[in-house]
Amino acid sequence: MKRVAVLTSGGDAPGMNAAIRAVVRYGVKKGLEVIGVRRGYAGLIDGDFVKLEYKDVSGITEKGGTILRTSRCEEFKTEAGRARAAKKFKELGAEGLVVIGGEGSLTGAHLLYEEHKIPVVGIPASIDNDISYTDKSIGVDTCLNTVIDAIQKLKDTASSHERAFIVEVMGRNSGYIALMAGLTTGAEAVIIPEVPVDYSQLAERILEERKRGKINCIIVVAEGSASAYTVARHLEYKIGYETRITILGHIQRGGVPTFFDRELALRMGVEAVNALLEGEVDTMIALQGTEYVRVPLANVLSTKKKLDLRLYELAYLLS
Amino acid sequence: MKRVAVLTSGGDAPGMNAAIRAVVRYGVKKGLEVIGVRRGYAGLIDGDFVKLEYKDVSGITEKGGTILRTSRCEEFKTEAGRARAAKKFKELGAEGLVVIGGEGSLTGAHLLYEEHKIPVVGIPASIDNDISYTDKSIGVDTCLNTVIDAIQKLKDTASSHERAFIVEVMGRNSGYIALMAGLTTGAEAVIIPEVPVDYSQLAERILEERKRGKINCIIVVAEGSASAYTVARHLEYKIGYETRITILGHIQRGGVPTFFDRELALRMGVEAVNALLEGEVDTMIALQGTEYVRVPLANVLSTKKKLDLRLYELAYLLS
Amino acid sequence: MKRVAVLTSGGDAPGMNAAIRAVVRYGVKKGLEVIGVRRGYAGLIDGDFVKLEYKDVSGITEKGGTILRTSRCEEFKTEAGRARAAKKFKELGAEGLVVIGGEGSLTGAHLLYEEHKIPVVGIPASIDNDISYTDKSIGVDTCLNTVIDAIQKLKDTASSHERAFIVEVMGRNSGYIALMAGLTTGAEAVIIPEVPVDYSQLAERILEERKRGKINCIIVVAEGSASAYTVARHLEYKIGYETRITILGHIQRGGVPTFFDRELALRMGVEAVNALLEGEVDTMIALQGTEYVRVPLANVLSTKKKLDLRLYELAYLLS
Amino acid sequence: MKRVAVLTSGGDAPGMNAAIRAVVRYGVKKGLEVIGVRRGYAGLIDGDFVKLEYKDVSGITEKGGTILRTSRCEEFKTEAGRARAAKKFKELGAEGLVVIGGEGSLTGAHLLYEEHKIPVVGIPASIDNDISYTDKSIGVDTCLNTVIDAIQKLKDTASSHERAFIVEVMGRNSGYIALMAGLTTGAEAVIIPEVPVDYSQLAERILEERKRGKINCIIVVAEGSASAYTVARHLEYKIGYETRITILGHIQRGGVPTFFDRELALRMGVEAVNALLEGEVDTMIALQGTEYVRVPLANVLSTKKKLDLRLYELAYLLS
Repeated sequence: MKRVAVLTSGGDAPGMNAAIRAVVRYGVKKGLEVIGVRRGYAGLIDGDFVKLEYKDVSGITEKGGTILRTSRCEEFKTEAGRARAAKKFKELGAEGLVVIGGEGSLTGAHLLYEEHKIPVVGIPASIDNDISYTDKSIGVDTCLNTVIDAIQKLKDTASSHERAFIVEVMGRNSGYIALMAGLTTGAEAVIIPEVPVDYSQLAERILEERKRGKINCIIVVAEGSASAYTVARHLEYKIGYETRITILGHIQRGGVPTFFDRELALRMGVEAVNALLEGEVDTMIALQGTEYVRVPLANVLSTKKKLDLRLYELAYLLS
Repeated sequence: MKRVAVLTSGGDAPGMNAAIRAVVRYGVKKGLEVIGVRRGYAGLIDGDFVKLEYKDVSGITEKGGTILRTSRCEEFKTEAGRARAAKKFKELGAEGLVVIGGEGSLTGAHLLYEEHKIPVVGIPASIDNDISYTDKSIGVDTCLNTVIDAIQKLKDTASSHERAFIVEVMGRNSGYIALMAGLTTGAEAVIIPEVPVDYSQLAERILEERKRGKINCIIVVAEGSASAYTVARHLEYKIGYETRITILGHIQRGGVPTFFDRELALRMGVEAVNALLEGEVDTMIALQGTEYVRVPLANVLSTKKKLDLRLYELAYLLS
Repeated sequence: MKRVAVLTSGGDAPGMNAAIRAVVRYGVKKGLEVIGVRRGYAGLIDGDFVKLEYKDVSGITEKGGTILRTSRCEEFKTEAGRARAAKKFKELGAEGLVVIGGEGSLTGAHLLYEEHKIPVVGIPASIDNDISYTDKSIGVDTCLNTVIDAIQKLKDTASSHERAFIVEVMGRNSGYIALMAGLTTGAEAVIIPEVPVDYSQLAERILEERKRGKINCIIVVAEGSASAYTVARHLEYKIGYETRITILGHIQRGGVPTFFDRELALRMGVEAVNALLEGEVDTMIALQGTEYVRVPLANVLSTKKKLDLRLYELAYLLS
Repeated sequence: MKRVAVLTSGGDAPGMNAAIRAVVRYGVKKGLEVIGVRRGYAGLIDGDFVKLEYKDVSGITEKGGTILRTSRCEEFKTEAGRARAAKKFKELGAEGLVVIGGEGSLTGAHLLYEEHKIPVVGIPASIDNDISYTDKSIGVDTCLNTVIDAIQKLKDTASSHERAFIVEVMGRNSGYIALMAGLTTGAEAVIIPEVPVDYSQLAERILEERKRGKINCIIVVAEGSASAYTVARHLEYKIGYETRITILGHIQRGGVPTFFDRELALRMGVEAVNALLEGEVDTMIALQGTEYVRVPLANVLSTKKKLDLRLYELAYLLS
């Protein structure tokens, strides 16, 4: 094997750069030429390639985002698009492709293998932690630290006033961020797509807690369940509560990667190159306990990661 | 002088606790008994007092919010309310009152002096930096560091995609936070109450910058000028731009106070006690250069702090 | 079971408070009375007890250190000392004891069970990550984030000059902190107790890298291997290098706990109470993958956690 | 005026990049070509020049260090060295030079003007805040935030144990960092070059405070007064105190610039270009209150900035 390529795709996640760095540096040390594909699958279709040398990835670990940039590419979702991408890839003369991204991106990688036998290895990167078979995906840890830091700031001010603060966090299909942030900051309520919300019950609960002497009232809501404004309207209507809203938005995708995301990304990058070298392709690198293993992409993609709802109960029990 | 009281009022600002600590500790060292008034003017009306000893303010500097809590008090805005507050204050037997808060709170303090000869000294605390005669108010610096940290995280992800990010920050009447945050992060546009916004011009400008190769597009908007959603709709309508929204909300009022806010609060607290001891009341402590001076509250309240619009031009020039 | 006790012991670790909070709140919700033992085993010997109610642990998650304080207690290392501690414990009428601490503390817990049948459950807390059977101990993650943040700051200035920066980190017997910090920040060298250091080789390596154009030179050294000053003297003597020293010291034990440490501590606290309730004592709660399991203390204490030296090679390979 | 140059010199300070960015962007907008000089005066002597375009300074504000790098240059301290530098400068065809640095660097700038009529404008950058006529120098604010963050972490662990923690901070001739950090974190003692230290008194004071119930004991020492080890030995000898040492070292020169340093640097950069354009050279830009003024370098260099020792008393009074 002489030449491999690497791309980042989908929503970006802190730590992607650390993964790129590891693929490049470990690859080079293993005698490979490493080609970066810019703008994800869109760049693959366009042949937007750049050779990455050892020094090109110097000092990128600490940067959020991805130096290769990402995109969401409609064309790649079609067979024709993937055929064009495969053609460009073959023209490049690369013998392996590392795809760093979330579920959609890994689906694309799997199809590239299925339809065109391109030797792909996936690295899970998704702040939602919604990829199965791996304990964590790249970006989750940094994202959650950003969210709890924000909630902590609200708690400062929350205990000075008498109001409800509603924090909308990312998570279109998964309540992981909202749940874990709520659990670890002691939020008064967590609203997630996995559990239907009953606003009457929520309102009652808040009133009760206020009676018991609680001053703080912080509600964390996953965007996939409701908007912060919807929650606010319900509380104002039902119990006349004044509310204040924070929508964190894309700051959840940025920030200097934490230690956890750096280690995760670095080691997944190394293992992705090893998997390519050993021909164990159409797989994804997964963290299981303290080990980095290879899981067939087919398995990953056919299994939905479930939220551990015992943690939801715990969040309420301990708040 | 034997006994003084201190209260925090209005929207809370990081550093208020450092000011309380300084008033208490410096006061005690000067032989005074210091009484904390809980919940601002509402607590004054209710006689919600607590004696604060040297140790009671240990370790509070680093905490956001205010240990005395604040409130917005409608009753205090009436003459009758202030009369009740003055009565309680006189029953307490205190000979001076330190009021830590924004313009509304300082107005209240001034009226307490005018109407009831209560010897007040004000300390300006307002994240908006909208209090005149003082270079900075308590909380501004921490707030701006919170905002630029958030924008920095957006820039990570912004340079990975091709979109506009709109960040709504505090500032009902003042664009100070938006302007200074935009200026120091190199935001592409700043929308503030002091300058009428022309969405067509804004849209054109963004398109031009994109042509010149700019990937980032971050727009900082003060809540008093427009909501982030309004800005988003205009950009989507006019140039079909995809936008992403962040509303920072009350996280701007929280956080561990910065060095600047700690020094400012500590020294203003000390000077407020000195002003009381020297009978120079109905004044506000102000930072002017490196000195802490006393300004008659009447002057402070009759002068509107103006935003330096040269900085607005600079923000555009350098972005 | 009606009453349980909890103590923190040994060097403190960020997250200990989150564990205390979980033990108290989960315990109370399970109908238990929870007693805090102040100052670790020293407090147990002295009967320094305090009842902890639900509200007493409000807002402590975000605090570094431990509200119960810790101590190192020589007396407890003797049979007589443990006998006194056991007597006090029995007088207290508690039926279970949660011990949060490192290897020494867990050894103490095990002896309390062996010698006096006190039903103990351990929670591993140690910034060195040197406790076996658990993927991570409480405090490791926060500590490493503090260390990489410091090294990152050095890198800013390091790439402005031409010098070696030597950072001494904690780790008397374990090089885990130094190794992982070095690996994830791309430090030029890592000096740890597990690998004999050859200063001539180190010096040569640095000279070579300088020749290859590297400007940065950061060396992370575990205190158990050498002091920063020793490393500096060697480099100055062998290659005339100017060096700059940072000794992080106990700032590595402080700081607001990260998301990872919060979740770890909270869930270990909950599981410790469950283990007590189910009578599975003389055990330690361990994180294995995504599960929290109970491991006999005898097993934990008879197994030395080994550093994964493949990571040492990786640190050099990728730096 | 068509071409100006800019260099950074001496110890680096967070915010230098923001100043470079402002000089370049504002310069370009004013129709100037801006040349960066690499490695300070050493680069000036060597003619190590690089043209800086608008885009070259994109995204550098948030970076610590300086993209132009700095050096300490012995040759430049000689007349011959400065003559060589002046020759290179004139060959470059530049008509103005912005020097960003501390007192030594500003002295160099002044000599370039005196000896060779090179039109220089200085920008004060020094974490020690030891440059006169300006309220603050670039880097001070970020440095102090780094230091107080470190001390805050120590306080977490300090209140869990019973020990003295000694923190050595920068400041060879000035105790500003130590004093201000000690004042704003409530450190128990501050040791600075400006005030002779009496270890017996210090020891007594600590014992007394311990008697009064204080658990924390944090001592901040400026490197120019004593090393942390010296302080530790005295305390151990005199009162048998166990001590723990932190030496922050060059992490005080790094880090993402704070809001304050960003604004300061940006506006000083702009004003430096204005001063060149208006021919008001051999000056330094100074912050005085909220205004940016031009002060003759001769005045700056002939005046020693004095530490306000009232703050020293205040630090002890309030600790």
